[in-house]
Amino acid sequence: MLKVGLLGAGRIGQVHAVNIAGHPGSTLVAVSDVNAEAAQALAAKYNAKAASSEEIIANPDIDAVLIATSTDTHSDLIEKATAAGKAVLCEKPVDLSLERAKACLAAVSKTAQPVMIGFNRRFDPNFGALRSAAHAGEIGKAELLSVTSFDPAPPPVSYIKVSGGLFRDMMIHDFDMANFIMDSAPVSVRAVGSSIVDPAIGEAGDVDTAVVTLTYADGRIAVIKNSRRAVYGYDQRVELLGSEGLLTAANMLENTVSKSTVAGVASAKPTYFFLERYMPAYAAEWDVFVTALAEGRPMPVTLEDGVAALAMAEAATKSAKTGEAVDLATF
Amino acid sequence: MLKVGLLGAGRIGQVHAVNIAGHPGSTLVAVSDVNAEAAQALAAKYNAKAASSEEIIANPDIDAVLIATSTDTHSDLIEKATAAGKAVLCEKPVDLSLERAKACLAAVSKTAQPVMIGFNRRFDPNFGALRSAAHAGEIGKAELLSVTSFDPAPPPVSYIKVSGGLFRDMMIHDFDMANFIMDSAPVSVRAVGSSIVDPAIGEAGDVDTAVVTLTYADGRIAVIKNSRRAVYGYDQRVELLGSEGLLTAANMLENTVSKSTVAGVASAKPTYFFLERYMPAYAAEWDVFVTALAEGRPMPVTLEDGVAALAMAEAATKSAKTGEAVDLATF
Amino acid sequence: MLKVGLLGAGRIGQVHAVNIAGHPGSTLVAVSDVNAEAAQALAAKYNAKAASSEEIIANPDIDAVLIATSTDTHSDLIEKATAAGKAVLCEKPVDLSLERAKACLAAVSKTAQPVMIGFNRRFDPNFGALRSAAHAGEIGKAELLSVTSFDPAPPPVSYIKVSGGLFRDMMIHDFDMANFIMDSAPVSVRAVGSSIVDPAIGEAGDVDTAVVTLTYADGRIAVIKNSRRAVYGYDQRVELLGSEGLLTAANMLENTVSKSTVAGVASAKPTYFFLERYMPAYAAEWDVFVTALAEGRPMPVTLEDGVAALAMAEAATKSAKTGEAVDLATF
Amino acid sequence: MLKVGLLGAGRIGQVHAVNIAGHPGSTLVAVSDVNAEAAQALAAKYNAKAASSEEIIANPDIDAVLIATSTDTHSDLIEKATAAGKAVLCEKPVDLSLERAKACLAAVSKTAQPVMIGFNRRFDPNFGALRSAAHAGEIGKAELLSVTSFDPAPPPVSYIKVSGGLFRDMMIHDFDMANFIMDSAPVSVRAVGSSIVDPAIGEAGDVDTAVVTLTYADGRIAVIKNSRRAVYGYDQRVELLGSEGLLTAANMLENTVSKSTVAGVASAKPTYFFLERYMPAYAAEWDVFVTALAEGRPMPVTLEDGVAALAMAEAATKSAKTGEAVDLATF
Repeated sequence: MLKVGLLGAGRIGQVHAVNIAGHPGSTLVAVSDVNAEAAQALAAKYNAKAASSEEIIANPDIDAVLIATSTDTHSDLIEKATAAGKAVLCEKPVDLSLERAKACLAAVSKTAQPVMIGFNRRFDPNFGALRSAAHAGEIGKAELLSVTSFDPAPPPVSYIKVSGGLFRDMMIHDFDMANFIMDSAPVSVRAVGSSIVDPAIGEAGDVDTAVVTLTYADGRIAVIKNSRRAVYGYDQRVELLGSEGLLTAANMLENTVSKSTVAGVASAKPTYFFLERYMPAYAAEWDVFVTALAEGRPMPVTLEDGVAALAMAEAATKSAKTGEAVDLATF
Repeated sequence: MLKVGLLGAGRIGQVHAVNIAGHPGSTLVAVSDVNAEAAQALAAKYNAKAASSEEIIANPDIDAVLIATSTDTHSDLIEKATAAGKAVLCEKPVDLSLERAKACLAAVSKTAQPVMIGFNRRFDPNFGALRSAAHAGEIGKAELLSVTSFDPAPPPVSYIKVSGGLFRDMMIHDFDMANFIMDSAPVSVRAVGSSIVDPAIGEAGDVDTAVVTLTYADGRIAVIKNSRRAVYGYDQRVELLGSEGLLTAANMLENTVSKSTVAGVASAKPTYFFLERYMPAYAAEWDVFVTALAEGRPMPVTLEDGVAALAMAEAATKSAKTGEAVDLATF
Repeated sequence: MLKVGLLGAGRIGQVHAVNIAGHPGSTLVAVSDVNAEAAQALAAKYNAKAASSEEIIANPDIDAVLIATSTDTHSDLIEKATAAGKAVLCEKPVDLSLERAKACLAAVSKTAQPVMIGFNRRFDPNFGALRSAAHAGEIGKAELLSVTSFDPAPPPVSYIKVSGGLFRDMMIHDFDMANFIMDSAPVSVRAVGSSIVDPAIGEAGDVDTAVVTLTYADGRIAVIKNSRRAVYGYDQRVELLGSEGLLTAANMLENTVSKSTVAGVASAKPTYFFLERYMPAYAAEWDVFVTALAEGRPMPVTLEDGVAALAMAEAATKSAKTGEAVDLATF
Repeated sequence: MLKVGLLGAGRIGQVHAVNIAGHPGSTLVAVSDVNAEAAQALAAKYNAKAASSEEIIANPDIDAVLIATSTDTHSDLIEKATAAGKAVLCEKPVDLSLERAKACLAAVSKTAQPVMIGFNRRFDPNFGALRSAAHAGEIGKAELLSVTSFDPAPPPVSYIKVSGGLFRDMMIHDFDMANFIMDSAPVSVRAVGSSIVDPAIGEAGDVDTAVVTLTYADGRIAVIKNSRRAVYGYDQRVELLGSEGLLTAANMLENTVSKSTVAGVASAKPTYFFLERYMPAYAAEWDVFVTALAEGRPMPVTLEDGVAALAMAEAATKSAKTGEAVDLATF
């Protein structure tokens, strides 16, 4: 039974708490948060203890920590927890600074501790099935990947300002998805973006709509489309053209009801946002982490993966600013 | 080149004229109609001659006639045309009277003339593909058939009164579809019906909504659902459960566009009625007729098929009235 | 916080345990089972106590019991639990004997205790959305209901023999679905059935494939199709035609991936069986039960509903045997 | 009645012949082809005359010509036909040389003759419905357009060598689609391409897989994806994200049948290639041309549109070679 400390009792921390407590191989023993009351409430619900993150990391009875704190604390907490001998599952992104993330990776590499980055979409059953089919050769050799990833509504501009920008905050998931499916890093990154959804986002120095093209050494190409606003819900699709066919992963819908009237046929929207869409993925992610630890197998998503996605985000940020293609090897 | 006389220049006759004239193996040489002007106009458009049906049938230069006149003339015209040595394609139903249709069949059997009944739905590419898959054993042994067949709007009550009733006028297509797919006649027929769409239809002695259950000697079951009104368009679907799977044929839609908004996802309706849905089927039907004649092969839909469907309609009419199961062998 | 005793620690009892323990308004305090070890194991996992059903019913600290035992014990346990002042959620069916179920209803009526029958499908989000749309008048007046309900594979013949037959064991869910959507009882029941899936089922006196037609006093019609075998998975669909449109609830699929190759387009099957398909429904069912108790509102599915569905099952069983329509008022 | 001369009796010429002859407002009077026999055969089938293109253009009894000859003859024939007072419908592209196309446009502008370029996809009912919905404001303000356009199989390398390259030969349709939907020209073009489908295409100096990103002055973005090979058929889709929703136009499928078995659900592929998919579009295109002439309204697709698409193709060709963004204003 894996004894787990949860760092962060916010919205995503609460999701993880359900999975930690509900998993047959893990138990939630401690919760920390900058808001002591939040930590206290969440801990009580699961008969766990509230503590500081320092106490949790220092506690020799705790085997693993799940880091669900604000992004600016991730690298520090990963370093401290691994130094203290904990296994770590850390929410993405590793850091907003590629340099800092690389330093973290260097530090962690010196320990023997397993670290997994929470790219939850890798555990979505739809994307997982698409990747499995692709890697099994069901559509031959991959040639052209398309990732569509639209949020239902933009965050407040106050959040935009500290987010690191669309490429680091939002598209980083899609960079990881490209790496997950294409199984190698691209060589060049071309990005265009605009703030057509909300000019205030542009004034804050960010974009809200963007297209990134990735090229690979073997001639493959990938395209990622992002928008901060798709009023019909969370639009999360992947499509891969290969030499022998096409794989597509469509959205999950709220229900399967359709209504046919003189006005046409009406059916349900995609599930609203990541908590609805990826709830099963979070549970699967935790299961994979616990199982990999129990069986001594390597983590399925590594700190290296987190650094690689961040490098792509930095390259895209630069390309969108300069208007030029960016060689990923320079990052 | 098959020289064809068209009997009937109404709506469905005009559809057939396009196919006769456009087919590489046939040419339209004469058109008749009770309305002489209609015959004249249609003939002129295709450089054919207007004539009476008697003249067309008597014309030794004409190889085949397509009968698209009113139902009460079908049996007579089939008998006369075959007696005159014509090949015949006649619109369904053969007759409203089972007795008369059987007499027609007896008369035709004495000639060597090929007669095909225009059950157009057999030539719909969707139903054809379903049947081919079923007969190829792709879902194992057939067990349970469902036919959904809804018209967009009820005809005027004046038409209802002379139509022979829903089972002879509308469900006869679905009886033939059951025969087409199940490849044998049922043993019993159970029908329920009501006039819930329009009480005036009930007052005219007919139903507008009906469900018929057919049982087969080998334990198979079929269900046919009819409604005179589906405001969203012509709803024509077939579904067959077998020992190794399920086959479904869905509706054709007006287009493939969908619109996702906060209100949900809106897409196109089924094509409106039989002229839209079955236009390709009419062309395929004519092609099959011409090709069978040219190659000396038997007609794919026979007068016997027309009589068989009519017997089922009579049985269903009786069952709906008595509330009891009807043994088809008694018809 | 509702204190709950769970009677029955089998497969479905374990599903309920998750929901009882996980719900913010309820706690699992005791578990019973004829297999003491099973009760012990399940209780331990949730820090609850194993006990006999008698002890649980007699325990004044327990507010409610969930009955997930074998069907032949349902009526007795409902009577005893309500007599002891417990609120009850009992798995369907109430009983295999309509007479016994009616006696149970009479007994319960004398207590003030709330009893809910676990017709889980009423809480499926798809069927719920369909019904809500229908009752909101979105397709006008209901006219024709179709329920398709196929199991993936037949149970062992040994089970068939004690099941009460397809109509009581399997179609009872669909009878309740008809009542749920049509909001009134039918007047007549017509059933046909055969044992085409497995002759051994026929030798055991049951059918494995059946179609039931229900007629309503106002002219509405409903059709229910059942098969014990749909090799592609659990096929659970509802379709309602109304004066202003059509509502359909389609299957849930294993995932949203599709693969296009020269062989065609391949996509995922329906979820395999009721545990996969209705897992969210079981959670919603429990939430509704707890909430109704907390707010003092009537149960959304009553013992009367259970008796009504059982009466329809008896009528269908009789109709399938006699081949005649059965007047539901005689039950 | 519009008297029409058809220049070119090849595959696409034959398609146009059907529509010219079948349209109530036009008649096919003459056919030319570099292969005299082909012209003769096609003319005979429609009771028209075979002639040289010079004779057709010089014939004062002919009102309009449809140019379906090889691309290198388009500009010349357009100029000659308009100089001779004919109305012209010319197959795309206008020319492989932007300079020559511009000269043609200048020449035609001096005549009063209407010229329409055959961008057939504008008349596809799906793309037409999408555009109408977009222009009606049904998804608010357009923000991000995606065009997917894959051919089923690459043409022979011998064709590739004279085709002008993927951007001029294949993607030109998609550039016009972008112009059709976005209703203004982009400001910059970024293209990446590779010859991953067939290295021989790369050796011939062309690409077979390409992604082009277009940016617009108002912040809108468009992405076009092309592949010369989608083994499952002709993949032609458009998707437009707007401030209030998303519009998508999906593929047309061969039929609506699906088969559910233990192996999954199998359904039909997209229609195979442009003749299957766009047959209705060719008929609609001709109808629009005839109607616009009859009513004296401007052509819905102009020579300017042809030149605009060609300029985008040249810009994309340059961008794919240099790896840099290209300012469209420089073309």
